[in-house]
Amino acid sequence: MKVNGTPTRTIWLAEDGRTVEIIDQTRLPHRYETTRLASLDDACRAIKDMLVRGAPLIGATAAHGLALAMREDASDAGLATAYERLFATRPTAINLRWALDDLRTRLAPLPADQRAAAALARAEAICDEDVALNAAIGEHGLAVFRALWEHKGTPDRFNVLTHCNAGWLATVDWGTALAPIYKAHDAGIPVHVWVDETRPRNQGASLTAWELNQHGVPHTVIVDNAGGHFMQHGMVDVCIVGTDRTTATGDVCNKIGTYLKALAAKDNGVPFYVALPSPTIDWTVRDGVAEIPIEDRGPGEVQRLWGRLDSGETAWITVTPEGSPAANPAFDVTPARLVTGLVTERGVCDASAAGLAGLFPEHAAAAE
Amino acid sequence: MKVNGTPTRTIWLAEDGRTVEIIDQTRLPHRYETTRLASLDDACRAIKDMLVRGAPLIGATAAHGLALAMREDASDAGLATAYERLFATRPTAINLRWALDDLRTRLAPLPADQRAAAALARAEAICDEDVALNAAIGEHGLAVFRALWEHKGTPDRFNVLTHCNAGWLATVDWGTALAPIYKAHDAGIPVHVWVDETRPRNQGASLTAWELNQHGVPHTVIVDNAGGHFMQHGMVDVCIVGTDRTTATGDVCNKIGTYLKALAAKDNGVPFYVALPSPTIDWTVRDGVAEIPIEDRGPGEVQRLWGRLDSGETAWITVTPEGSPAANPAFDVTPARLVTGLVTERGVCDASAAGLAGLFPEHAAAAE
Repeated sequence: MKVNGTPTRTIWLAEDGRTVEIIDQTRLPHRYETTRLASLDDACRAIKDMLVRGAPLIGATAAHGLALAMREDASDAGLATAYERLFATRPTAINLRWALDDLRTRLAPLPADQRAAAALARAEAICDEDVALNAAIGEHGLAVFRALWEHKGTPDRFNVLTHCNAGWLATVDWGTALAPIYKAHDAGIPVHVWVDETRPRNQGASLTAWELNQHGVPHTVIVDNAGGHFMQHGMVDVCIVGTDRTTATGDVCNKIGTYLKALAAKDNGVPFYVALPSPTIDWTVRDGVAEIPIEDRGPGEVQRLWGRLDSGETAWITVTPEGSPAANPAFDVTPARLVTGLVTERGVCDASAAGLAGLFPEHAAAAE
Repeated sequence: MKVNGTPTRTIWLAEDGRTVEIIDQTRLPHRYETTRLASLDDACRAIKDMLVRGAPLIGATAAHGLALAMREDASDAGLATAYERLFATRPTAINLRWALDDLRTRLAPLPADQRAAAALARAEAICDEDVALNAAIGEHGLAVFRALWEHKGTPDRFNVLTHCNAGWLATVDWGTALAPIYKAHDAGIPVHVWVDETRPRNQGASLTAWELNQHGVPHTVIVDNAGGHFMQHGMVDVCIVGTDRTTATGDVCNKIGTYLKALAAKDNGVPFYVALPSPTIDWTVRDGVAEIPIEDRGPGEVQRLWGRLDSGETAWITVTPEGSPAANPAFDVTPARLVTGLVTERGVCDASAAGLAGLFPEHAAAAE
């Protein structure tokens, strides 16, 4: 998507055809800076220090990291070390492991002197595949949006509410929940996005708002408390969010607060969609609320916030009184009964075992 | 309630028997400072600059402000000027007008030399009446909490969720929604409070957490997104909130986000109570969502936050990107169907026209 008017990905091959560049996402939204990854060390640091974030982008960065490592040491020992070091940066990230396994399997049989080129080619392919996957989600979501917009008589403002950041910054391009929004905007549907700020980490207020602003999509930041009120007053035409994990029955685990928006959507007859690449479906889980463990990220993110001082410097402030503890569950589970549909790269389906089985018969059969 | 172990009100007569002292609430929760009001000017400034806040406390401060004014100029002209200046500080505050009208009606017939003493006596009485009203709400709410706690088999943690600040800081003492919490804590029920931070103004994270901390009530600050998750997992036994305005049919207008918590409570079978002094019932309104206009407070409160830097100084930070607009509806309406009961100074009733008519037959009849 665009940054300062220029189409941009979150990771791209530099002009030297060897090193890669990324956006330093820790500086957003207050500063836009890119940085170059020239070594395995650089790639490890970029993932560990969260210069890159979002499962697909972490996977793509790891793939490029392994390619960079093969230029330094393409021996079997070098491959093993690079795999281990990259895996250790964020060991719970599923795409990270997937990308590393994929590359190792392809590189291991090759002679050492062919590994660097093969790794780079595969890393680029992984990036392109992610872009294609998200573009497909975008097209299917666009069809949903267009039908809703036309059903409403093509009003000159089509209001979409989203939570957290499921945008291109979390992927290589397009994003998941934001892909249909970009597609709709580019197709001339007059999209306006209500952006939940998404406390505690404010991914909406910082990343989603920044993305939409750069691409020129009209949007308004709201506190997480406000969406229900706007839905009561007919000011939301559709909700769309991403997901970290979807069960085989269509329950959706996503950023904390998603469940509250889904309840409000149901109460007001507002369609509630979830955009997901099919690798995030967990075919082994059937009851999301009962079975999915929710990470508690510790009190600091609730008690302290980061932002820009009037001087232009950035700083952390504490908002709670000394002595008041905080709790910080990072995700919640939205039961499938509250979800209107799942938007995948293969199309849109009901949030149900039957719906998912229809689109992904090969997985559903294996999960029985 | 207690501050540093000492029972404290939000406004009290100073030792000189003439001036009054208040807590400078603009410094909370990072600094506890009291300040003295010695003149009409001081009282106007305290209300206008929000050193005092909350309808009941604003009314009490205005009453004391008029008493201070009568020491400076007790003539008819002095009374008229003081009324006008105090009224202009926050013209939409209902208790402000009520208190000023009450005092003017009592003072006008008196000779000028009796006005100062009469005004002070009435201001003190208004404060005491507010304390008694809130204590009564507290007792009725305590009975609800005790029954729920005993029904659960007297677990050693009774979890109450609250939103915004309906505590003693908004009144003269006890508060409304927090009154039952203080009563229950003092009665030995092992209350633990989930405190919604309550964006955008963070009244929960700052004021409610501060109050509870000072009085020694166990509590945990959470982001507004988290309550639904805790309810799904049986970690909330009851919700209780305050209200700015309740309709004759039991719809509740309260701080933005209240509606989302009520939806989650309903979805999980968690009782949802609203504490209210009966003067906040608007007997002329029947459909809260359709009829109550919601104030839009402008984007700054969403885009910027106030807190304590690591240096100890306080500062404002901006969290949104330059160029991203924000919207800021201050309240929402929770339909009566989501409310388990209304806790008033006369007792607890259903959130319905019939329920309210049972407790307040004199008003209900007039509203027909």
